[in-house]
Amino acid sequence: MAISLVGFDADDTLWHSESHFALTEDRFRALVSPWSERGETSERLLARERANLELFGYGVKGFILSMIETAIDVSDSAIPVEAIQQIVEWGKEMMAHPVELIDGVTDVLDTVGRSYRMILITKGDLFHQESKIAESGLAERFERVEILSEKSPRHYREVLSRTGVDASEFVMVGNSLRSDVAPVVEIGATGVHVPYTITWGHEQVADGSLDDRQGDRARTLATIRDLPTLLSELA
Amino acid sequence: MAISLVGFDADDTLWHSESHFALTEDRFRALVSPWSERGETSERLLARERANLELFGYGVKGFILSMIETAIDVSDSAIPVEAIQQIVEWGKEMMAHPVELIDGVTDVLDTVGRSYRMILITKGDLFHQESKIAESGLAERFERVEILSEKSPRHYREVLSRTGVDASEFVMVGNSLRSDVAPVVEIGATGVHVPYTITWGHEQVADGSLDDRQGDRARTLATIRDLPTLLSELA
Repeated sequence: MAISLVGFDADDTLWHSESHFALTEDRFRALVSPWSERGETSERLLARERANLELFGYGVKGFILSMIETAIDVSDSAIPVEAIQQIVEWGKEMMAHPVELIDGVTDVLDTVGRSYRMILITKGDLFHQESKIAESGLAERFERVEILSEKSPRHYREVLSRTGVDASEFVMVGNSLRSDVAPVVEIGATGVHVPYTITWGHEQVADGSLDDRQGDRARTLATIRDLPTLLSELA
Repeated sequence: MAISLVGFDADDTLWHSESHFALTEDRFRALVSPWSERGETSERLLARERANLELFGYGVKGFILSMIETAIDVSDSAIPVEAIQQIVEWGKEMMAHPVELIDGVTDVLDTVGRSYRMILITKGDLFHQESKIAESGLAERFERVEILSEKSPRHYREVLSRTGVDASEFVMVGNSLRSDVAPVVEIGATGVHVPYTITWGHEQVADGSLDDRQGDRARTLATIRDLPTLLSELA
């Protein structure tokens, strides 16, 4: 195939993100442990996040609000208000947390950028994503940065139309089968899955759910360091 | 002057927004009235919003979090946790509130769109702004929709560079002197101020602060209905 454009997801593909959510969730489960055991807390939090997604969208602020509601809910309003302030503080820590690049990312972008146009495609909170992109020092390597509210086939089509690239010549790289691979395969592009050590419940898809349509257009790598080799094979 | 492009702000320019914030703030002041009188509550809330802006950015979710922190703060943690849930519910109502166009907007866009290229330039929460733009039914009238994290001279320059329009041929229309007029005048474009009935404290600028640089490049209209006439005069 001819490759014209390589798209990169950001959170958990270029830098660590889910690990900060997981750490905060761990603290949260300890905070509400007088009222709810850990497994139940996680289940109810995820259910709350999912219910709130259509109102709040993705990102830390929605996560904080979902934790607050879950805390009140599982404690039957018995949680002290100081604990609510604690949850807000955790959210602020997450928003202010320094960006930590994933091992190998800079080298890979150097290599891929010598042969292909590159674009950053992320979803979530505009303000927080922009902060992280600026802080990462990686922005100049990409010809565009697209921050989307959702990563649906329609959203990817719109991005490709803005770049003037045909889907058949587009390769998307990211840690989420649901957001970075399935929708691009659906529009006729190629998705490269580079799993992160942790996957948020909402992004998890059942094993094999992509099997019938993936073939050569959905690949998996153990580490992003293997991307240049894969692109050479695909090209 | 030659006018190539007319930019429109969205919240409080095309549709009502600040009135929903004001209504919620009114309920909030009543909620915490056992601990803080109304004027003091508003002052402390605004101070908290300003302090949180650099972490949370603009929008309803940050507003909710600032109300929660202010409630805990002014009550010295005496506020019941049920009141916190109430604040979150208000936030959800705001996020789900139907879009109400400001009188005359559709006619004005019809008229201006016959003579000029038009673009929507708004700031704030990506997810909420996209929802409102979609719901407004106005999106197709604009050649681009730009949702920014902030409206600084740099952000406007970037937007103009994406549209290929020179600042001297750009007119921006909006309700905020701080966000829609001052930064565009600074880059050599023209700003048209159409005040909304209410201005958020953070967007307020001292009277006369634009005087030394405005001249013909900063105009004020009583209503957006007067825009087509003003554009004819400017052209």
